[in-house]
Amino acid sequence: MQLHSMWASYPDLEKDLKDVLKTIEKNIQIRDKRVNQNVHSLIHAGGKLLRPAYALLMAEIGPDYERERAVSVAAALEVLHMATLIHDDVVDESPLRRGEPTIHSRYGNHYAVYTGDYLFTVCFKILSKHSDSIQNIEFSSRNIEKILMGELDQMRMRYNLNVTVKEYLSRISGKTAQLFALSCYSGATASKAPRHMAIKAWNIGHYLGMAFQIIDDVLDYTSTDSGLGKPVLNDVLQGVYSLPLIYAMREQKPAFAPLLSKKSEMSDADLNLLLELIEQHQGVEKAFELAQKYTKKAQKEISKLPEGDYKEILERLTNEILTRKI
Amino acid sequence: MQLHSMWASYPDLEKDLKDVLKTIEKNIQIRDKRVNQNVHSLIHAGGKLLRPAYALLMAEIGPDYERERAVSVAAALEVLHMATLIHDDVVDESPLRRGEPTIHSRYGNHYAVYTGDYLFTVCFKILSKHSDSIQNIEFSSRNIEKILMGELDQMRMRYNLNVTVKEYLSRISGKTAQLFALSCYSGATASKAPRHMAIKAWNIGHYLGMAFQIIDDVLDYTSTDSGLGKPVLNDVLQGVYSLPLIYAMREQKPAFAPLLSKKSEMSDADLNLLLELIEQHQGVEKAFELAQKYTKKAQKEISKLPEGDYKEILERLTNEILTRKI
Repeated sequence: MQLHSMWASYPDLEKDLKDVLKTIEKNIQIRDKRVNQNVHSLIHAGGKLLRPAYALLMAEIGPDYERERAVSVAAALEVLHMATLIHDDVVDESPLRRGEPTIHSRYGNHYAVYTGDYLFTVCFKILSKHSDSIQNIEFSSRNIEKILMGELDQMRMRYNLNVTVKEYLSRISGKTAQLFALSCYSGATASKAPRHMAIKAWNIGHYLGMAFQIIDDVLDYTSTDSGLGKPVLNDVLQGVYSLPLIYAMREQKPAFAPLLSKKSEMSDADLNLLLELIEQHQGVEKAFELAQKYTKKAQKEISKLPEGDYKEILERLTNEILTRKI
Repeated sequence: MQLHSMWASYPDLEKDLKDVLKTIEKNIQIRDKRVNQNVHSLIHAGGKLLRPAYALLMAEIGPDYERERAVSVAAALEVLHMATLIHDDVVDESPLRRGEPTIHSRYGNHYAVYTGDYLFTVCFKILSKHSDSIQNIEFSSRNIEKILMGELDQMRMRYNLNVTVKEYLSRISGKTAQLFALSCYSGATASKAPRHMAIKAWNIGHYLGMAFQIIDDVLDYTSTDSGLGKPVLNDVLQGVYSLPLIYAMREQKPAFAPLLSKKSEMSDADLNLLLELIEQHQGVEKAFELAQKYTKKAQKEISKLPEGDYKEILERLTNEILTRKI
């Protein structure tokens, strides 16, 4: 079982994450062999496993750490993430995910829709098997509901030139940050952390998720196809305008309108011009600065957590993923 | 609030079902006004509400009937049903549902996929709020998982001329019958029915669901567009071969193969020929006979339930819906 290479320098966490994948494998058994194969490839296609990693680390802050429970909760969150990825790929009509053909592109929307649904249910199945209270499940489902509401919000804002920074932040808060926050919170409650500690974990996850998503969105404007394994400027073409573009548009909207009005029909020349305009208005730099603010907030909250080996790892990991090269 | 006219003759149940719809309304709040509107229309578009009705009736067999809990569980099951309908419409590319344009046809796959996901989560949220044990949630999620597996199986069997009666029954058992069974079971456990009674309720739901789905499939071959509010022979065109066709093909497969090989390109003349062949081999009659067998099994099990007003209603309702005109 091969994890993303980044985990080699976190041997204990790497071992736990391998067990997370084993738990996921055990819980996903689809009778259609081809689809089963495809989902299992997705499990092993080198996803970063950040959400389960944070859940596992946060499981060390409570008084009642039980490895199996922590691993299971982490697995449920990764399965939820996989479900949203599969449905995102249907919606975005993405041909590739982690360098592999997506389920919808290989087998059609049919399979992708139901496979995602199936994974949502697997997530709840694992959660309910390992939660010790209905309240936890209710809390999780309320939050997963918010994540999906974030997806619907993103749809609603597509191709909207007037989208504001505030709206952008609210959208990623409801999507990525919500899932990071839920992961941290669920990790903490899996070890019966007291309520105020679980809320701290939630906040850390929120800041992490905000920073992570802003950086991810910046990468859509800065990285090349080969480096990222997915088409660059994909979001822009899909009408999902993220922070670098929003910051730049704030300076000179009239220059952007004629380009963006071509929607998914923008030519390579249009895209190059768009990138130049964003550079001219320092959209990427400004977005990156905001990401750094969130990173610092996360780091500050992490520094207040109880001491322990896990805390050092938490600091190192956060530093590593949130200072990705742009 | 207008329910399907069939409920007028069941005034108590009608009152409870109205509260089921109110509970659903209260729990579904989508910020996108248009989508919210569309989902709320779906709630009121005259769905038969059979699953919640059976859940409500079965809630009377346990010793601890609590109206609010029974209504909530019934609502969760109808929300689950709505989620699967919305995703089914994406997969089948159906333009209409209950006489209204479907979400995917009006707003695109994007909205339909996420709206369905959102409803899945709402179902779990309601269930967890009103279940009194994790075991119930776990049981529900395991069964919802099986329903989705049934959907995936249906996909796998599409356009397969060699599909057997056994495979067909296993497919509808995993899909419709599973949801009817879960509805009856959940109703029973909502009033803390002892395990052996809950299992009885499960079995009744299973038989009901089998009969209901076979009759529904028969209607695809016998009813006209206006009567059913959806295109007739839709399933055949989508490659979903159901019981009347399977029975007829068993008699003379070579006659069907050239027609069916045209898949969704079958002309009106082809479809008429297909109907004639099915008539010739009495596909509809044989399917209807099997439905009656399941209906009788359900009725027999219902007759063994503890006496009470609910039981009479259960018998009348079952008689009414399972002797629909074909």
